[in-house]
Amino acid sequence: MGILAVIGSFETVSLPTNRRRVRYVIGVDGGGTGTRARLTRLDGEALGYAQAGPSALGQGVEQAWRNVSQAIEHSFRDATVDDWDPGECAIGLGLAGAIVASHSRDFLHAASRYAHVALASDGFTTLLGAHKGKPGAIVIAGTGSIGEALLPNGTHVFIGGWGYPIGDEGSGAWLGMYAMRRTQQAVDGRVSAGALVRAVQSVAGNTRDELLAWCERAGQHAYATLAPLVFDVETADTYAAELLNAAARSIDDIAVALDADGTLPLVVSGSIGQRLEPRLTPRVRARLVEPAGDAIDGALRLIRERLRGDGIVS
Amino acid sequence: MGILAVIGSFETVSLPTNRRRVRYVIGVDGGGTGTRARLTRLDGEALGYAQAGPSALGQGVEQAWRNVSQAIEHSFRDATVDDWDPGECAIGLGLAGAIVASHSRDFLHAASRYAHVALASDGFTTLLGAHKGKPGAIVIAGTGSIGEALLPNGTHVFIGGWGYPIGDEGSGAWLGMYAMRRTQQAVDGRVSAGALVRAVQSVAGNTRDELLAWCERAGQHAYATLAPLVFDVETADTYAAELLNAAARSIDDIAVALDADGTLPLVVSGSIGQRLEPRLTPRVRARLVEPAGDAIDGALRLIRERLRGDGIVS
Repeated sequence: MGILAVIGSFETVSLPTNRRRVRYVIGVDGGGTGTRARLTRLDGEALGYAQAGPSALGQGVEQAWRNVSQAIEHSFRDATVDDWDPGECAIGLGLAGAIVASHSRDFLHAASRYAHVALASDGFTTLLGAHKGKPGAIVIAGTGSIGEALLPNGTHVFIGGWGYPIGDEGSGAWLGMYAMRRTQQAVDGRVSAGALVRAVQSVAGNTRDELLAWCERAGQHAYATLAPLVFDVETADTYAAELLNAAARSIDDIAVALDADGTLPLVVSGSIGQRLEPRLTPRVRARLVEPAGDAIDGALRLIRERLRGDGIVS
Repeated sequence: MGILAVIGSFETVSLPTNRRRVRYVIGVDGGGTGTRARLTRLDGEALGYAQAGPSALGQGVEQAWRNVSQAIEHSFRDATVDDWDPGECAIGLGLAGAIVASHSRDFLHAASRYAHVALASDGFTTLLGAHKGKPGAIVIAGTGSIGEALLPNGTHVFIGGWGYPIGDEGSGAWLGMYAMRRTQQAVDGRVSAGALVRAVQSVAGNTRDELLAWCERAGQHAYATLAPLVFDVETADTYAAELLNAAARSIDDIAVALDADGTLPLVVSGSIGQRLEPRLTPRVRARLVEPAGDAIDGALRLIRERLRGDGIVS
């Protein structure tokens, strides 16, 4: 049994590898809402695909492990392969929260029945997928935001991704927090209420008590649910348009910090990032490319590189 | 037994009052760090004073009630009065969190052994104390921030006070959150590190992992502990000075929204508010007065007004 881990997408740990024959390579992409697994043969041919519940490590390593296992098992069922054994499987995983070293260690411990395991953050596998493992940069802005780059010298850089409530500038939660702050200020008369405030109130409540109760229950995900409202009213509400410009500037800042020379191809992804693309500066837009693949492609690339390093695939 | 409540410092509820003779009037000021009680006679003479643990209702109504009871009991001990009975006591309380109606109801239920109880938020009792119950305005900026005013027509207005992490602009937690955001951005190279970033790192850690771990544990109070660092480096760090100016503008905005005509006397209080006073606009500074009394004075005023309404004091 060999565990090959990219802990926190920074360090690579290689443990002794058994020589048992690997027959299957599986790529897994896991986050706060779901897990997707693609089953492939050693030669790369895709055999099956399945989805399961969330596997963000911050929501609990046991839940993550349960849903990852289920996605893998169901990918075999999808491929109508009944006779398989974890000892024949090498899995590459990009999981939200793998950036926290203690989460990664706990997860790898649970995963030890597989022949080979390589774990990285979902941001890193998205980066690997987007640029086929070659040097490149990516800014992902969904519920949270982070920028990652693989430099020509092999260095892995990342910018942002500090999480709710302080970091993740330009993300959905960040937009939602400012939309709520604006609403609070309008309700008590510090600013005038426009279309954005009315939209937030239609979701979170009109009165001070209703809004306070909503905020008391709300976390990162609840604030991110307000972000689409900002886009909905951007033509009708000056403040909403300014807020989207500020979010785009945050994405710009992350992209520039990832690659000050502006030589790397750049992918902007995530539901918020994609909608902010038209607002990015020409300098950053000039670097934009379409992603070559997704986070599952990246996870497969991650594990195949490790298998190649061990001479298991060529 | 009569409970007289100012729930959420908005509503006044008067329940049937018994005619038993009230001998003692007690003022209580309670927040997230401690509770202070002053025992007075019906004619207003002070007899005793005591302190106890926190009684912010958001930290749990049972804890609040235990500490309020202890502060009251110890104020009798301080006055060397052994022979007393809750049925002879009227208490006025200004407690953090009383703005939430469900908290107030639960607290009042626990307090029902006292003859008379009047409950308001600590902000409202601070306002009553600062201006002797007359029309006036106050902005309090400590861990959180809120502005309250009593208008000449008797209306009670409040602005801000929406709490962590969205509201409470210009407060200690707000300053600390921006100081941490600046530190995150400096650590990953989006901005240059100055004296403020170094000061935050000396408290919260130098590396990405240390800072992430600090932020994962941190809440409103932890962020507020960073605020004094911003003042410490204000002459050495341009960003820190800008941040303090932004905090002062937030206080200005609250003060103006409380009283657009600028006719009411204004008190700025709280550890952060007092330090921001020199940065307020001339327009707002022109309205500043010294507070006539503190939140205990306000709590005593609150309960005495109710007792006067019932003809128990004149």
